[in-house]
Amino acid sequence: MRKVAIVGTGHTDFVSGSPKTEIEMFCEAAAEAMGECGIGPERIQALYCGNVFGDFAEGQGMIQSYIANELGLHHVPATRFEGACASATLAIRDAFVWVASGFYDIVLVGGTEKATAMGTPLATRTFAMGTDAKYESAAGLTFPGFFALLAHLYADRYKVPMERLREQMSLVSVQSHFYGTKNPHAQFKHKQVTVEQVSSGFLVASPLRLLDCCPFSDGAAALVLASEEAAKKLTDKPVYITGVGQASSPRLSAQAPYVPRIRAREISVKQAYDMAGIGPSDVDICELHDCFSIASIIAAENLGFAENGKGGELWEKGETKIGGKIPINISGGLKAKGHPIGATGASQTCEIVRQLRGDLADSGRQVEGARIGLVDTLGGDGIIANLVLQAGW
Amino acid sequence: MRKVAIVGTGHTDFVSGSPKTEIEMFCEAAAEAMGECGIGPERIQALYCGNVFGDFAEGQGMIQSYIANELGLHHVPATRFEGACASATLAIRDAFVWVASGFYDIVLVGGTEKATAMGTPLATRTFAMGTDAKYESAAGLTFPGFFALLAHLYADRYKVPMERLREQMSLVSVQSHFYGTKNPHAQFKHKQVTVEQVSSGFLVASPLRLLDCCPFSDGAAALVLASEEAAKKLTDKPVYITGVGQASSPRLSAQAPYVPRIRAREISVKQAYDMAGIGPSDVDICELHDCFSIASIIAAENLGFAENGKGGELWEKGETKIGGKIPINISGGLKAKGHPIGATGASQTCEIVRQLRGDLADSGRQVEGARIGLVDTLGGDGIIANLVLQAGW
Repeated sequence: MRKVAIVGTGHTDFVSGSPKTEIEMFCEAAAEAMGECGIGPERIQALYCGNVFGDFAEGQGMIQSYIANELGLHHVPATRFEGACASATLAIRDAFVWVASGFYDIVLVGGTEKATAMGTPLATRTFAMGTDAKYESAAGLTFPGFFALLAHLYADRYKVPMERLREQMSLVSVQSHFYGTKNPHAQFKHKQVTVEQVSSGFLVASPLRLLDCCPFSDGAAALVLASEEAAKKLTDKPVYITGVGQASSPRLSAQAPYVPRIRAREISVKQAYDMAGIGPSDVDICELHDCFSIASIIAAENLGFAENGKGGELWEKGETKIGGKIPINISGGLKAKGHPIGATGASQTCEIVRQLRGDLADSGRQVEGARIGLVDTLGGDGIIANLVLQAGW
Repeated sequence: MRKVAIVGTGHTDFVSGSPKTEIEMFCEAAAEAMGECGIGPERIQALYCGNVFGDFAEGQGMIQSYIANELGLHHVPATRFEGACASATLAIRDAFVWVASGFYDIVLVGGTEKATAMGTPLATRTFAMGTDAKYESAAGLTFPGFFALLAHLYADRYKVPMERLREQMSLVSVQSHFYGTKNPHAQFKHKQVTVEQVSSGFLVASPLRLLDCCPFSDGAAALVLASEEAAKKLTDKPVYITGVGQASSPRLSAQAPYVPRIRAREISVKQAYDMAGIGPSDVDICELHDCFSIASIIAAENLGFAENGKGGELWEKGETKIGGKIPINISGGLKAKGHPIGATGASQTCEIVRQLRGDLADSGRQVEGARIGLVDTLGGDGIIANLVLQAGW
């Protein structure tokens, strides 16, 4: 297997109510990624695209083929991946193996999604298709309800008083919004919030309040992947994908032996760590799937950054900030940066690459000296995919 | 790269109005495929699933995760591929590389789709999301219209009088229905048709009539793929995937230099032929994408079985029957076997494997002595994927 590097990154603004189509947003991100490493479309040998609801949002199936057309990627193999909110990370893991195996030298991968045009009630119902249709969503379970259940289970299982968990969850959102103001692509780049505002906000699904929940978003992100040999000609700062992992959980009701832990994440991230030959203490920066504030706390534990039941303490102690033990979601995360679901994994990866390269020095959110980053993306209830990224210079 | 074999096949009945869910149908096919090679779910390392409209048909996104759950594939990576009607073939090509690269030894791949519950008018409109949403489907273009346009272009470009093309197209459908009666899984296993019936049927989109068009269908098919080493322990008759190809075309209106040829198919099948080290004259049996009768004629040319404009003559001369130069769609094809879109590529592959193994001796549709088979699947307008399959004993 060959080493695979990320040599170009592109990221649109994440917004509500984009006037652009999903295809246009992907192309905007892809053009930036290709420009960053100085290649034209004729160098791209294959396209991998994460997208969840192009058909529902815009009546566009098989979107990857039209993206290839718009970008001038004439006749390349173009494949769409769908694993709910983890779609783009599945696409990246897959693009990785096509390059690692020697099939291709340079490929384009990313994701795009336009969710806000549906409006919140319909989008909530549509997103719920990422849970089991036979028993769960049919019974009225939507994702706010899903994570609200996990929050109650968490408090009960680990004996964290709900009052303390409430404060921990608020701290998660406060930090995400703080760093979101330093990310010019963030949907809430102008909005800071306080613990009091989060804790007393509109109740969505007890105990989750409005500011515990990530928004619906429109946006895209893209990456150029290259073999080690090709990468060295395209950039001085290749970021290698040194570990990949992916696993699936059954429906929520079948996860009883594990919840609130998400067992698939524990399996997936172990694959990624083992493949990279690292452990959680080696990670310098992490973008994890904070669709709800409680999700951040659970994820931090599953990824090995804290013991079960102690995840919230990372935020209490400031360990998740720049300068802390494990900086988490310094992009603003799904909460403040936004969550265009089919694009999210590519956005997380883009952020880590830019952090490792030291590109963000002027932003106020650079994690100095970071060499190893971890990407964590959750789809539905749930598919998990993880990537370990390492500075290669 | 390691050699990759197909060691198990499974195929549900293709029907209209299945009482089963897409998940149940996939599991039925998967259980047959795993049983055929004598393995249980604990041996499967990853799942690859083609599915187009699980969300529209049943409100189920991320269907692969729930399939893994139902099959007892605990926590395996499970990925859904969508490339309209080519979805399952994209999944197979992808599963191939994960085994070829050494990442996995045994994986499960297939497709499932339930299209008939929507009813024909809604299904026609839903399927049209496989064309460009901005200019084509928005202007009213559906797939019957798309292929009707190709038929007129074909007659004009190659100076085939429409009366003769009409008869050639009818011969395509007559042959498919004839062999369909020999396939117990076929949707129209009880229905033979005559040239007169096809040529005088209900006009759908001039010149295409009802019996030129494949049906909407429900069904699933699945395959177990294994590395050469693993395959030898699981079967005496491994069928190797010796060539794979995939390419994308832009929207129909941007294909002007090529139509009625589908340039992506010419590129894709060349990749597959070159990788396998064969040419069209080496192919003993082919399952091609006959969504409409004219599509068969065009595909036979693009795949190298006839010169442009001469494809219909293969059917006129009986060269596409058993005993002919290139037996095509001896399963009954999409026309008579049925076309559950996300499953179609897996169904085609299943049929070729069973032909190469000589499993169909009692069916009246066995192509004796076939050693090399070709799979051809078209998605939308279009993504093409091809597989070359070779008997390995």
